Amino acid sequence: MRILLFLCSLLFIHPVFGQTVTGFSEEGAAAQLELEKKFDNLLNPENLDVWMQKMAARPHYVGTDYGRQNAEWMAEQFRSWGYDARIETYQVLFPYPKLRLLEMTGPQKYKAKLSAVAVEGDGFTRQGKELLPSYNAFSADGDVEAELVFVNYGVPADYEKLEELGIDVKGKIVIAKYYGSWRGIKPKLAAEKGAIGCIIYSDPKDDGYYQGDVYPKGAFKNSTGVQRGSVMDMPTYPGDVLTPGYAATADAERLDRKDAPTITAIPVLPISYEDAKPLLEALQGPVAPENWRGALPVTYHIGPGPARVHLKLEFDWQLKPAHNVIAVMPGSELPDEWVIRGNHHDAWVHGASDPVSGMVALMEEARVVGELAKAGNRPKRTMIYCAWDAEEPGLIGSTEWVEDHMSELQEKTVIYVNTDGNSRGFLSAGGSHTLETMVNQVAESVTDPQTNVSVADRRKAALKVMGEDAEFKLSALGSGSDYTPFLQHAGITSLNIGFGGEGSGGEYHTIYDTYTHYKRFKDPDFSYGIALAKTTGRIVLRMANADVLPLTFKPWYRTVSTYLDEIMKLTDDMREKREKYNEMVESRAFELAADPTKPFVKPEIKPVVPYIDFSPVQNAMAALTVTIDSLAAVDMDAIPASKRTAVNKELQKLEQSLTNNKGLPRRPWYQHMIYAPGFYTGYGVKTLPGIREAVEQEEWKEAAEQIRVVAETLAQFNGSLQQILETARN
Amino acid sequence: MRILLFLCSLLFIHPVFGQTVTGFSEEGAAAQLELEKKFDNLLNPENLDVWMQKMAARPHYVGTDYGRQNAEWMAEQFRSWGYDARIETYQVLFPYPKLRLLEMTGPQKYKAKLSAVAVEGDGFTRQGKELLPSYNAFSADGDVEAELVFVNYGVPADYEKLEELGIDVKGKIVIAKYYGSWRGIKPKLAAEKGAIGCIIYSDPKDDGYYQGDVYPKGAFKNSTGVQRGSVMDMPTYPGDVLTPGYAATADAERLDRKDAPTITAIPVLPISYEDAKPLLEALQGPVAPENWRGALPVTYHIGPGPARVHLKLEFDWQLKPAHNVIAVMPGSELPDEWVIRGNHHDAWVHGASDPVSGMVALMEEARVVGELAKAGNRPKRTMIYCAWDAEEPGLIGSTEWVEDHMSELQEKTVIYVNTDGNSRGFLSAGGSHTLETMVNQVAESVTDPQTNVSVADRRKAALKVMGEDAEFKLSALGSGSDYTPFLQHAGITSLNIGFGGEGSGGEYHTIYDTYTHYKRFKDPDFSYGIALAKTTGRIVLRMANADVLPLTFKPWYRTVSTYLDEIMKLTDDMREKREKYNEMVESRAFELAADPTKPFVKPEIKPVVPYIDFSPVQNAMAALTVTIDSLAAVDMDAIPASKRTAVNKELQKLEQSLTNNKGLPRRPWYQHMIYAPGFYTGYGVKTLPGIREAVEQEEWKEAAEQIRVVAETLAQFNGSLQQILETARN
Repeated sequence: MRILLFLCSLLFIHPVFGQTVTGFSEEGAAAQLELEKKFDNLLNPENLDVWMQKMAARPHYVGTDYGRQNAEWMAEQFRSWGYDARIETYQVLFPYPKLRLLEMTGPQKYKAKLSAVAVEGDGFTRQGKELLPSYNAFSADGDVEAELVFVNYGVPADYEKLEELGIDVKGKIVIAKYYGSWRGIKPKLAAEKGAIGCIIYSDPKDDGYYQGDVYPKGAFKNSTGVQRGSVMDMPTYPGDVLTPGYAATADAERLDRKDAPTITAIPVLPISYEDAKPLLEALQGPVAPENWRGALPVTYHIGPGPARVHLKLEFDWQLKPAHNVIAVMPGSELPDEWVIRGNHHDAWVHGASDPVSGMVALMEEARVVGELAKAGNRPKRTMIYCAWDAEEPGLIGSTEWVEDHMSELQEKTVIYVNTDGNSRGFLSAGGSHTLETMVNQVAESVTDPQTNVSVADRRKAALKVMGEDAEFKLSALGSGSDYTPFLQHAGITSLNIGFGGEGSGGEYHTIYDTYTHYKRFKDPDFSYGIALAKTTGRIVLRMANADVLPLTFKPWYRTVSTYLDEIMKLTDDMREKREKYNEMVESRAFELAADPTKPFVKPEIKPVVPYIDFSPVQNAMAALTVTIDSLAAVDMDAIPASKRTAVNKELQKLEQSLTNNKGLPRRPWYQHMIYAPGFYTGYGVKTLPGIREAVEQEEWKEAAEQIRVVAETLAQFNGSLQQILETARN
Repeated sequence: MRILLFLCSLLFIHPVFGQTVTGFSEEGAAAQLELEKKFDNLLNPENLDVWMQKMAARPHYVGTDYGRQNAEWMAEQFRSWGYDARIETYQVLFPYPKLRLLEMTGPQKYKAKLSAVAVEGDGFTRQGKELLPSYNAFSADGDVEAELVFVNYGVPADYEKLEELGIDVKGKIVIAKYYGSWRGIKPKLAAEKGAIGCIIYSDPKDDGYYQGDVYPKGAFKNSTGVQRGSVMDMPTYPGDVLTPGYAATADAERLDRKDAPTITAIPVLPISYEDAKPLLEALQGPVAPENWRGALPVTYHIGPGPARVHLKLEFDWQLKPAHNVIAVMPGSELPDEWVIRGNHHDAWVHGASDPVSGMVALMEEARVVGELAKAGNRPKRTMIYCAWDAEEPGLIGSTEWVEDHMSELQEKTVIYVNTDGNSRGFLSAGGSHTLETMVNQVAESVTDPQTNVSVADRRKAALKVMGEDAEFKLSALGSGSDYTPFLQHAGITSLNIGFGGEGSGGEYHTIYDTYTHYKRFKDPDFSYGIALAKTTGRIVLRMANADVLPLTFKPWYRTVSTYLDEIMKLTDDMREKREKYNEMVESRAFELAADPTKPFVKPEIKPVVPYIDFSPVQNAMAALTVTIDSLAAVDMDAIPASKRTAVNKELQKLEQSLTNNKGLPRRPWYQHMIYAPGFYTGYGVKTLPGIREAVEQEEWKEAAEQIRVVAETLAQFNGSLQQILETARN
């Protein structure tokens, strides 16, 4: 495979000054590289610093006046840089916490403080009532009291362990650690298992003193910090809970709140480790398995009880305006081909890191694109810079906008490039694998500010040191930021780009995510903000100016093949594991190995894992190889100008042929057949999700159906590629 | 291999009532099984309970009056059971802590308490001054003050990490966690690296609330508990530090204390986690790597400093009498063939678990053997029951005794069977692999008290559940109990037997190892004490009565082959790892992956790992296969009585042909060429130690020499086996 790629690069990619720029003729590539040099020279880190100070000066969650002011100010900035900027507003349901009560009623009394302390040296943390109280958005209202059960991270494997121990959470309140999954999975699973309430806390092992010195001495979470966050069932659908699949315009028809399927079934509240400690200390019952234990100075027991807790939550459920800023610069040659670039602007509190660090890099990128345009280098395709509102409660601003403009976006968008919080460290990039070649070329051409090698080489060095395959690959996207509606709902070719890994801390979604914290621990000189602007700037400019859209198919094929291999191996591994398990049940190994003085539920024989027929997908992949090999033999950058429009149109729509308009089982909103957030992981991606999740859940009939659906989708994708091949050749 | 063994059992082992008893004719086996039934029926768990109460009533470390009383009382008991019991006393150097001072002198002051608290419900912990203060025996005297450095477990890999971080312990005092190696390795390595003092503490992650509820609520170590223990350099030689290789009789010539090589070079003191916390909290410098961090509620930093500590230790270095109890019952037919059985009787404090739980099982076994003898079933070979003194400070009682009687022991002993602390759970057995078949047969015939399957089957179920090969194998012995002088110095066929795994706790070498603790958390009804007596009782009775000593050679061969394979693979793995490492140094991967704001020492190219010639050992093993195959074709149990004496004499001496009288490099006391405690692991075994440690230390010349030595040793062993074959055949 590597040899083929190497040949491919020898034959068809035009090296200019040692660089290759797919999508351009040789002279076009030279001009583009010249443009990028100018672009780099105009970037100014001081802007990022000044803008962050402004935008993160006060809390600006959805519906706040400061959030609206930020949106208006950004629109003004975009206009001053030559964009046609407007604010598109949706009316979205947003719960504000009216009443939050958590108390232990026995065997000791304890009333949770539920508030993080202001710290020395960071005035932002002293803004009192303006700071949004800590809570989980889209928790149900509730008033419950019950015995407590510690459920580790509250993910499926944890409930399997509880079952082994004979512990049932029915009628109980669970306490789960943050991490291990996206937070919304915890109350979702707890409710499925019959729990009546859910507490989520940040254990110092994952997110506190175990990781490093705590704020304000160091960057990590102190004992009072609480991570806010949405628990909306985003794996079912993101966006406004009352308007699934369509825009939350002022006059839209809305679901009754009680019918909204993405609000949790049970009340859920996040707490600090200071508040969690007395609760965990009061639990008895079995000692938690070793990999469940955190870093609090207690013996972690599971319960249930004797700790009893009372959890009472009331929310003010109001429609709030979500203000998306949309800044357009029509393309000089191809105004109906859109390059969209976005980052959200709303934050849970000040959000210096999340999202402002990414937002200001986007703005600086847009400013320089504007400046270059003024100087005569207006992009050929239309540039649309977006600042999304209401991302934090559930990707709401971007989702409503995509739902609002769905068909036009599908018709015109050539790429959506997303960013979010940014920090010091290593480039990470995820998205449509047809873009892997282009992203690689970009990553090879941006210099890492700390080491003076390319950001690609720095990342590869890190992979090498970790003992991994030292290639720069795109990751698959799950969810957790605004690419989701573009990629997984609308089937738009998408990327998500960021730097990080050397700016770790515990500020995420807390009152400590401030400018002060960012300057001390994240990217003090904004050099990685600039590196981000250079990376995404190159990506959008290449996409905007390319003669032929720089999509390639070998990396896509290689990647999707590995997904299929993984699932086939998963099935075989499950089968082998199940056989061993059943043999051990039959030979009484579990019983004999168990300590008879400890709780033990005699395990039962489980159903065998059948052999399943993957051949429809294997055959579809085999057919794709042929087409992709033929495409690799065509020099796309050299096709005559007369054919480019047609080829580009087909390339522009290509990602959509990987979607199916029936969507995934039980979640029709998710239409992409290659990438989706996991139904039981949340942010974590599941690739070939229809098949993979059916296998994981042992739904063999559904697995067979989804194999057929994926095979059809791949055939459809093959059809599109054949069309491109035909157009390019004729 | 399995098929061969199976055939072998079909052909030559005599099943009686479904059991196989190697070493006996068919009728001899039947009689032996009948005897074992009687033996089982006479065992009484109440004796263990009553005797433990007596022996563990007061502290009884070496030199105490209570220790002497225990010895005399035991001798009396043995006499009452029909043994000829005597006390053999040696005069051994034993340091008693006169002055123990540990204080932090800056940046804050803290004076370590150095004492565990008495607890509710356990009167033994309230014996005040009688409780031996916590210390590490054979620490040097010293008075040092310096900055502190946290060194994780203080093992070689930890110093490699420190080197990567550019941290030097020269002139510093190190603080290391217990665990990760035998404790004596920590000051030994620290001193080699230039540290001037060493503190060892029990982190709650390994040994405290992280593991379970702490004493007295649960079994685990509370914040004040301190593990005592020897830090004598036992991997160089155990036993009295002043009389290396010869007995510490009253009039023996002794080294000057300053010349004793097994006393540490620097002062070392163990402390509780209560005392460690302020010291660790005061450290700055890099945050410790993730796998170094414990469960204290602090951010683990490495230092050096700013914490400075002052450590002052003075010991009263006196010769103390160590009283070994030796109880002999001459064999009815073969009085010059000895079966020796031992357990130590000295404890750091009360030692209910360590060693009394094993001691009382040995006594009950001896009592019943005596009773059976009185009833006409006197063992054919001589039985010698031993209760060793001064095991805790460094296997002193047993070592001096072996050194005292070396040539007679080598001439007469057919087996040494050791036990030590015992608890509830799973059988573990280690020792000479020529005994694996016999131990398996015994393990198949003893019933587990909790599950009613054989102790072998229960152990196999546990292995299966852990995903390991479910065969009951003997482990290789390193050090840590009294088998060491027998096996590794004198080359006597040896075993170490015990139950455990379900009685975990934090009492080891603390004031909490009491009868009260044992009854609550270890083996409350002494059923595993009885299971131990049944297991070791069968072993000694079979060895005592066998027609032909039940040694087999296929399991030995299979096991030693795996050791050789491991070392060859280790060498290849080291080579491959080194090549990768050097490539990463050359490609600057480490530099590029490192966070430039954190300490980083540019790594250097390291020497390549050469290919080495293992063929001498491979050829010696190949020659052994031939002999062992031939031996497997002989029915040893059926050889005529006239030949038995000669064959048994050769079998009795066989293990000695695995020794080399020059010993291991730099530690001539260790003469066994297959098993030794690791020079840098302490208790942890190194198999084929001469070769393995040379490879690990990259001493390639020494590796080649040791390959030659081991090949010669294996040839010597082959010669002995050929002699046996010849004698058996003629």
